[in-house]
Amino acid sequence: MNFRSDNEAGAHPLILEAVRRAFTAGTAHSYGDDEWTHKVERRLREIFDHPGLVAYPVATGTAANVLALSCCTPPWGAIFCHPASHIAVDEANAPQFYTSGSQLVHVDGKDGKIDPRRLADMLAQPVYGVVHHPQPAAVSITQATECGTAYSPEEIAGLSTSARRHGLKLHMDGARFANALSYIGCAPSELTWRAGVDVLSLGATKNGAMAAEVVVFFDRELAREFEFRRKRGGHLFSKMRLLSAQLDAYFADGLWLANARHANAMARRLVAGLTALKGTSLLYPVHANEIFIALPAHIHDALEEAGAQYHPWPSDRPGERAFRLVTAFDTDPTMVDRFLSIAKTAE
Amino acid sequence: MNFRSDNEAGAHPLILEAVRRAFTAGTAHSYGDDEWTHKVERRLREIFDHPGLVAYPVATGTAANVLALSCCTPPWGAIFCHPASHIAVDEANAPQFYTSGSQLVHVDGKDGKIDPRRLADMLAQPVYGVVHHPQPAAVSITQATECGTAYSPEEIAGLSTSARRHGLKLHMDGARFANALSYIGCAPSELTWRAGVDVLSLGATKNGAMAAEVVVFFDRELAREFEFRRKRGGHLFSKMRLLSAQLDAYFADGLWLANARHANAMARRLVAGLTALKGTSLLYPVHANEIFIALPAHIHDALEEAGAQYHPWPSDRPGERAFRLVTAFDTDPTMVDRFLSIAKTAE
Amino acid sequence: MNFRSDNEAGAHPLILEAVRRAFTAGTAHSYGDDEWTHKVERRLREIFDHPGLVAYPVATGTAANVLALSCCTPPWGAIFCHPASHIAVDEANAPQFYTSGSQLVHVDGKDGKIDPRRLADMLAQPVYGVVHHPQPAAVSITQATECGTAYSPEEIAGLSTSARRHGLKLHMDGARFANALSYIGCAPSELTWRAGVDVLSLGATKNGAMAAEVVVFFDRELAREFEFRRKRGGHLFSKMRLLSAQLDAYFADGLWLANARHANAMARRLVAGLTALKGTSLLYPVHANEIFIALPAHIHDALEEAGAQYHPWPSDRPGERAFRLVTAFDTDPTMVDRFLSIAKTAE
Amino acid sequence: MNFRSDNEAGAHPLILEAVRRAFTAGTAHSYGDDEWTHKVERRLREIFDHPGLVAYPVATGTAANVLALSCCTPPWGAIFCHPASHIAVDEANAPQFYTSGSQLVHVDGKDGKIDPRRLADMLAQPVYGVVHHPQPAAVSITQATECGTAYSPEEIAGLSTSARRHGLKLHMDGARFANALSYIGCAPSELTWRAGVDVLSLGATKNGAMAAEVVVFFDRELAREFEFRRKRGGHLFSKMRLLSAQLDAYFADGLWLANARHANAMARRLVAGLTALKGTSLLYPVHANEIFIALPAHIHDALEEAGAQYHPWPSDRPGERAFRLVTAFDTDPTMVDRFLSIAKTAE
Repeated sequence: MNFRSDNEAGAHPLILEAVRRAFTAGTAHSYGDDEWTHKVERRLREIFDHPGLVAYPVATGTAANVLALSCCTPPWGAIFCHPASHIAVDEANAPQFYTSGSQLVHVDGKDGKIDPRRLADMLAQPVYGVVHHPQPAAVSITQATECGTAYSPEEIAGLSTSARRHGLKLHMDGARFANALSYIGCAPSELTWRAGVDVLSLGATKNGAMAAEVVVFFDRELAREFEFRRKRGGHLFSKMRLLSAQLDAYFADGLWLANARHANAMARRLVAGLTALKGTSLLYPVHANEIFIALPAHIHDALEEAGAQYHPWPSDRPGERAFRLVTAFDTDPTMVDRFLSIAKTAE
Repeated sequence: MNFRSDNEAGAHPLILEAVRRAFTAGTAHSYGDDEWTHKVERRLREIFDHPGLVAYPVATGTAANVLALSCCTPPWGAIFCHPASHIAVDEANAPQFYTSGSQLVHVDGKDGKIDPRRLADMLAQPVYGVVHHPQPAAVSITQATECGTAYSPEEIAGLSTSARRHGLKLHMDGARFANALSYIGCAPSELTWRAGVDVLSLGATKNGAMAAEVVVFFDRELAREFEFRRKRGGHLFSKMRLLSAQLDAYFADGLWLANARHANAMARRLVAGLTALKGTSLLYPVHANEIFIALPAHIHDALEEAGAQYHPWPSDRPGERAFRLVTAFDTDPTMVDRFLSIAKTAE
Repeated sequence: MNFRSDNEAGAHPLILEAVRRAFTAGTAHSYGDDEWTHKVERRLREIFDHPGLVAYPVATGTAANVLALSCCTPPWGAIFCHPASHIAVDEANAPQFYTSGSQLVHVDGKDGKIDPRRLADMLAQPVYGVVHHPQPAAVSITQATECGTAYSPEEIAGLSTSARRHGLKLHMDGARFANALSYIGCAPSELTWRAGVDVLSLGATKNGAMAAEVVVFFDRELAREFEFRRKRGGHLFSKMRLLSAQLDAYFADGLWLANARHANAMARRLVAGLTALKGTSLLYPVHANEIFIALPAHIHDALEEAGAQYHPWPSDRPGERAFRLVTAFDTDPTMVDRFLSIAKTAE
Repeated sequence: MNFRSDNEAGAHPLILEAVRRAFTAGTAHSYGDDEWTHKVERRLREIFDHPGLVAYPVATGTAANVLALSCCTPPWGAIFCHPASHIAVDEANAPQFYTSGSQLVHVDGKDGKIDPRRLADMLAQPVYGVVHHPQPAAVSITQATECGTAYSPEEIAGLSTSARRHGLKLHMDGARFANALSYIGCAPSELTWRAGVDVLSLGATKNGAMAAEVVVFFDRELAREFEFRRKRGGHLFSKMRLLSAQLDAYFADGLWLANARHANAMARRLVAGLTALKGTSLLYPVHANEIFIALPAHIHDALEEAGAQYHPWPSDRPGERAFRLVTAFDTDPTMVDRFLSIAKTAE
């Protein structure tokens, strides 16, 4: 009963098989000039209904985020992000490293989302062009957020309107983009470029791949230096087909969406079961595949004793013990039910 | 007949199978706290006869080199390397990026090897502790070199003696370490720490893996900051088993050496055939799996027409056209023979 | 009637004369190995009652701050500072540049001071040694603050206790240290190392010098790399006596304190006059030489029309117009009185 | 008898007086929006016959060089320079720091000058746009060189032709530009932009100022980010008049040229006297104010005993002891004659 993280899951058989086939297909041009890499870009142009986008595979979510951001800000720029965002707390200053020293400015907001009013106020300061002040350069949002919620297209458009008014770029950390998309139920384009997103870190690793993300630029000009930046970061794979074959299978025949739908469904099943129990309460609405929930001690103890695994999480409410549970593309429904049954018994 | 590069090859079936097995084995702890990663380190301790070494998997050769070097020099340091070295010409300034601005100083020498006398002279300058001058911090050598030659243990020890006299660290870029080792025929320890190497970038990608390298620190203290540096570079894999399962299979049962032996043998077979032809001449001795050779125009034309693929290479001798041919772990001997037969016919 | 900034003032005659004398005294060893530089360090050891301190002159406050901070944090570190601090908003990301990409984390608090409870809470997170998270490395406080207030020794000690508990260094941006010291009225040591400060950026430029600051390390080990960092930043002066002669005169015979006392007295005189007027209100208590005050429109208009110069300042209270007035070492009391008389007339 | 360095000299009285006047002239706008700074730019436009140039004062030669270079190269760029250049050996990797990790590539040549053929060959490599290779971005030359020689306008034009063919920028480190100009005897424009120089670090510190250099951009577009870079480096002076008043006096009424003429004349006087002595030989032609000369032991010993001060210098010829002597704007001719008389007596 492992609900620790979707990055502890294995990989989807179709993705494994795609990699095997790619690597037994003889020689291939290196560094991305291969059929799999080209195909991934073509697929994404269709999926996002955007024939001009450019797409670059990388292996980790941190690499995707920081390479994307490094195209959005000068070293003296400021990137506005939620204080709980991955780039702020989980990347060991990789954003500052790749941007040669830009500044992350926190914009707080409910449920892991940037408060649009607060952002508008912060961007309306008279700092533009003034040499002393970090220059507002980009807004970075996480979809789904680190609190397991999803921005609606309208919410994104609201933030992007503020950003554009002042010439900032909008980056989306989409490590769990498929989960958000599956929840919102709109077209991929509506959740990205039509809502004003300039560049998207689109994740596959947490959703059935082994290690594959793709940086998708809707604004081609923004990608001008990307390839030099990726190489300089040590993120250009010689045998790129390792990444691209994964991504090709991931985006083929809707696998990415099917995986996300399953993970989300398992989360809803967990939520339904847990919130029915006395003394539990959600920290945030559950939109994607992460659940943040306060559990009474006796329920948690019973689960732990039964071998269930999940992380503790800080709660703002004094005396409360909260936890994070994450489901994945391969979470077994019978495991969910077993988990719930133990919790129910302990109630 | 593709002799363009060993990084255009596929992957060894045992490595593919190991990855498949790892990713169908259920959940595993993320970020390297998994059985495969631990096993790789244990294997390397045995192979290098060094129970204190620490080993960190990364995905690319550039990442391995620059993360290793970033542990060897302060930002105001100088790294001494051959002008043909990968870190100098093929990594888009990644070394300077990861070391926060150190300086690469070129030390020339025959056949891709640093001239020991020249290095000794350069290190004997009165710059130590003087705040104006870049501080000599590390020597980086490539094994096998970019010219396809291999340093002997004695040659390495000679360079390391100079380095140690002045407190410099010795890094080895071993993207083709297995090929060099196979040529020299000594124990891995004799070619590394017993000869004075402090940290080794040990490659698998070019020799049968998909994307896997491992940074091996023989000096544990040097590794103190490595994990923060790897994370900050975006090179920490959440599903680390992708890298470790490859490496585990690579180092098991001598696969790495068998692969290298085959690649080297194919190179020798090519050399034997080609140098027997009138008008050909080697640019450098062939120790590993790279051949640099001048070919008469009619031979080259015939080969090209027959579909053979290999890169042109700059030659110092006026009027001469030179080329690079690379063999790999899976180079087919019948392909070599066909190639030679075409060349012979054209002679 | 210029109250725009203390950095618009001229220089004190004794400082000008000291520079003239130093530069007509014949040749002198370069790069700081000169009598003036040595004398400055000796003076500071006496003034701060700390025979082991080391002191390095630099020319700008930004240089002093960021070179000091670069000795306090690794690139993956976090520096905790007030959101209004100079390093956060007025240095164009110089801190991130000099620290190779550390992160500034804002800790809010009243009157420009870090809230000690909030800092303690933020430092008590389980991030230490965890490779994903920026590592808490330093706390930076400003004395006097950007709101014109001064920390008491007890307040500093409170913050330093939190910092030390978790192994963080404490930096003080003392661009207006003399003004704070003059207000508090204690010994320099009590406001610095005895209260837990590890390194101080001690300013002279705003208080009578032309361009001179000195970085004072109370923790000698922390200064180990300083000289390389200063040189690498382009901040090592060949004719160092330009900086040191200014500082020597500044610290001789209490000139620095006399200058600060005068500036503070002029600020108090302004405050007394202005707060007596109807409709005015201070944004923060006035401890040093900066006044933040809301003025009724008719008063401001009258002052402006009379040629008075000072900056507008954002106010949190809707509808209110606030301003910043700064006095300096050479502010003329008759100018203050003229200003007050105009304001009084307009009341 | 101090011939150690021109940076050990004092300052010219006219420069000292200009600074005194500037700082007793009341308040002035800060950060360079002052009359002295504007005047310096106007003077330089006249002197260089270039109404479009922009000029930025900074305090040190290293700052001038590295800020200028940071406008000429991306982080993945290569800067071609002589192995003896100040940026390569005397700036503790400041160029790499300010350019976020570019690479310095050494181009050797006689007498401290880049060999034009060698540069042309190095720039003619097929690396442009190839993501693996550092991208050739700038050539940096030193005028006068570190060997005391001066490039002619034709030599500069030769290098600039190579640079422009491949889209590289041409930077000139002019720490001793006035000495070179005085030797060559042409118009300042002929030695700079008319010969293809894009940006010049123009020094005053070594030639009569206390600490003042000015970065002169002949290509205005290149300066676009300069002001943010200067601020981020901590090199923007609040009381900028300290730098500008020095520069204003320096460029007024030909003081800069008079100072350089004197220093050069003193160097020629020394050379004439020394080369007349048996056993002496120059390492390089003497164009500016630096002399590199081999001296017989008995002459050196006699000089040293008499208290003469100058630095030893490495010589390529075995058994030879060489030295560097530097004259300055204020070198006393009677001191030169005394020095020569001691040498003559010892012959």
